[in-house]
Amino acid sequence: MQFAKRSEGINSSFIRDILNLTKNKDIISFAGGLPNPGLFPTDEFASAAENILKDPKLSKEALQYGQSAGYRPLIEIIAKSYKTKDNLDIDPDLILITNGSQQGLDLISKIFINEKDRVLLEGPTYLAALQSMQFYRPEFYSVQLEKDGPKKESLNSAPKDSRLFYCIPNFQNPSGISWSNEKRKLVADFAASQDILLVEDDPYGEIRFEGGRPLPLKTFYEKTVMLGSFSKILAPGLRLGWIIAPNKEFFEKLLLAKQAADLHTSQFTQMIAAKFYENFNSQAHIEKISQVYKKQKDALVSALREHLPDFHFNDIQGGMFIWGSFPEDVDTLSLLDFAVKEGVAYVPGIAFFAKDFQKHNFARLNFSNSQKEDIVLGVKRLRKAYEKYKEQR
Amino acid sequence: MQFAKRSEGINSSFIRDILNLTKNKDIISFAGGLPNPGLFPTDEFASAAENILKDPKLSKEALQYGQSAGYRPLIEIIAKSYKTKDNLDIDPDLILITNGSQQGLDLISKIFINEKDRVLLEGPTYLAALQSMQFYRPEFYSVQLEKDGPKKESLNSAPKDSRLFYCIPNFQNPSGISWSNEKRKLVADFAASQDILLVEDDPYGEIRFEGGRPLPLKTFYEKTVMLGSFSKILAPGLRLGWIIAPNKEFFEKLLLAKQAADLHTSQFTQMIAAKFYENFNSQAHIEKISQVYKKQKDALVSALREHLPDFHFNDIQGGMFIWGSFPEDVDTLSLLDFAVKEGVAYVPGIAFFAKDFQKHNFARLNFSNSQKEDIVLGVKRLRKAYEKYKEQR
Repeated sequence: MQFAKRSEGINSSFIRDILNLTKNKDIISFAGGLPNPGLFPTDEFASAAENILKDPKLSKEALQYGQSAGYRPLIEIIAKSYKTKDNLDIDPDLILITNGSQQGLDLISKIFINEKDRVLLEGPTYLAALQSMQFYRPEFYSVQLEKDGPKKESLNSAPKDSRLFYCIPNFQNPSGISWSNEKRKLVADFAASQDILLVEDDPYGEIRFEGGRPLPLKTFYEKTVMLGSFSKILAPGLRLGWIIAPNKEFFEKLLLAKQAADLHTSQFTQMIAAKFYENFNSQAHIEKISQVYKKQKDALVSALREHLPDFHFNDIQGGMFIWGSFPEDVDTLSLLDFAVKEGVAYVPGIAFFAKDFQKHNFARLNFSNSQKEDIVLGVKRLRKAYEKYKEQR
Repeated sequence: MQFAKRSEGINSSFIRDILNLTKNKDIISFAGGLPNPGLFPTDEFASAAENILKDPKLSKEALQYGQSAGYRPLIEIIAKSYKTKDNLDIDPDLILITNGSQQGLDLISKIFINEKDRVLLEGPTYLAALQSMQFYRPEFYSVQLEKDGPKKESLNSAPKDSRLFYCIPNFQNPSGISWSNEKRKLVADFAASQDILLVEDDPYGEIRFEGGRPLPLKTFYEKTVMLGSFSKILAPGLRLGWIIAPNKEFFEKLLLAKQAADLHTSQFTQMIAAKFYENFNSQAHIEKISQVYKKQKDALVSALREHLPDFHFNDIQGGMFIWGSFPEDVDTLSLLDFAVKEGVAYVPGIAFFAKDFQKHNFARLNFSNSQKEDIVLGVKRLRKAYEKYKEQR
């Protein structure tokens, strides 16, 4: 069968294939990006669902067709949250609710990217962002990262006709890097000088272990689209995220794309999230997640330092991932076979690089979905796999 | 700001603008395509939500990331339903869960339609299908309809290089037409002769007032994609539909497009739907909906015959819409202004036609979301609006 050109050359997701491997219960998986399900606010959601479905008026609202922009009370909760966390005034009329921030990426790409348009990404970047944008057939340029954000030289070498820069400035996936305010200013100035759209994705920003929250790119540059998600702070199964458009024209285009894509996001799950914010202490909940994840992260960092000294990485201040490298001659894709045989999994770094800039010796390790004992055991297995890999090379 | 070419020329949805008008509570609206919210199984959903969220294992499954294909028990329920209603053997591995069948349309278009590809539609057709496909910039050809389905001559005049035919053979939106088995065979033979993909959308097929269920196009022709929806038989707010791919290759392409679009559909809403089917009598529920809608339809048909004899239409055997025409010199878009002033709304027929085949004197009237007394009052108002329109012309 002959398919559309845009669907050629899209690869099956690495993560998906790896997750299939890790369904085997004996495998300790650092591979996925799954939140710790023990922290899902299930009792609070049960109470919210009951309040909604047992109320004749609310239940009809929850189960009927809704507005394409989203459930208004939830939109207003999101707008307010930016005032609290970033002292930003966000116009609720520029917020569109999406099925996770993944859909935000798809809709933005749909209305903004023509075939062969230049798109800037961090190298490495979120692999499902690559996948999502690939359908619109842009040409990628990877902006290399250093400890505090994009490398200036790499940014300045970017093609001059670039259309947008997709980035995750807080606890980036996969690298865990958080951009300094100086780097944010640098990127904003760069974008302004070339009239580039910035797409600022921030699914992890609130999962902070230490340090203060840096300024959003939006503070420095108006032509910024912001993407947000409830997947890491509430639960992914609700499939709730949002886009903040830079202006009304952009919002209207997004709204039409959203209607065409699926009419609107479930009113029911939106109302559950809204009730959670109205009736429970969301800030305390987020702090609890951050505390638990910090312990899980500390366990992984210690175990790696103790058992796997060949794996080089920087400690992180938040998020869900440790990213690091083995010596240059190690191929983490080949190493993975050994790891799975030993009962441990991770994602090979290659999955996070666009074609123009690839590294073969990196790996991403998730800690949010493993208990401390498993983390230590998993790292020991990885050590064993690494030794066998080196022997058999 | 400069947007992608594909987002140019997409019009704001007529229906959306009209629905905005009808938020005014004094307006009796025949405009939307909303199910009767009094029939939503809210108690059953409340019980399902409680079962899921109060169970430690189920709640984690509901709230965590899930499989892109969908929640397996729901997929199997869908496969079985085709055995029951159509005696069709559907391979569950070819079923993908979507956010309503609207997303099915978007994903199919994404993987299958190149710019300038020829796409066949019924004339008239579902307006959000037009909107969804327009993003992929095909050229539409409208296959004209008669009482029992596509006109043979119109089908035979279709361009020979057509790629797909999108159709709604059961109680079509907007026309209410149900294709005879002869017409289904005709279209299947036509598609086979030109190797066209058939996309068979069936959101209304189970809302049947009388007569027997005709054979799905799939029975006659393998290269058929089937689209289904829980919006009309359970509730739109769950945002649940499905695609049945014609083969594994097609399914894999769809799966990648789904991952890129939003990773997966909410596990929580999928599990609620599955529990509904497991624990309650879905067949009795669907029969109840059909009975109520038949009464609402009968009320509209009688009122139109009594009060608005200039409006010509065919009675229907199922679905949610009456479609008809005023005399040729009436423009239903202009008439709408008069109608809204009198306190009644409908959708002008023009919204349902692609550019190549347009009619100005048609209107679609929905009856599922209005009570009997309102239906009669609404038609009386429409009569008054029609009289004023004729006077002022």
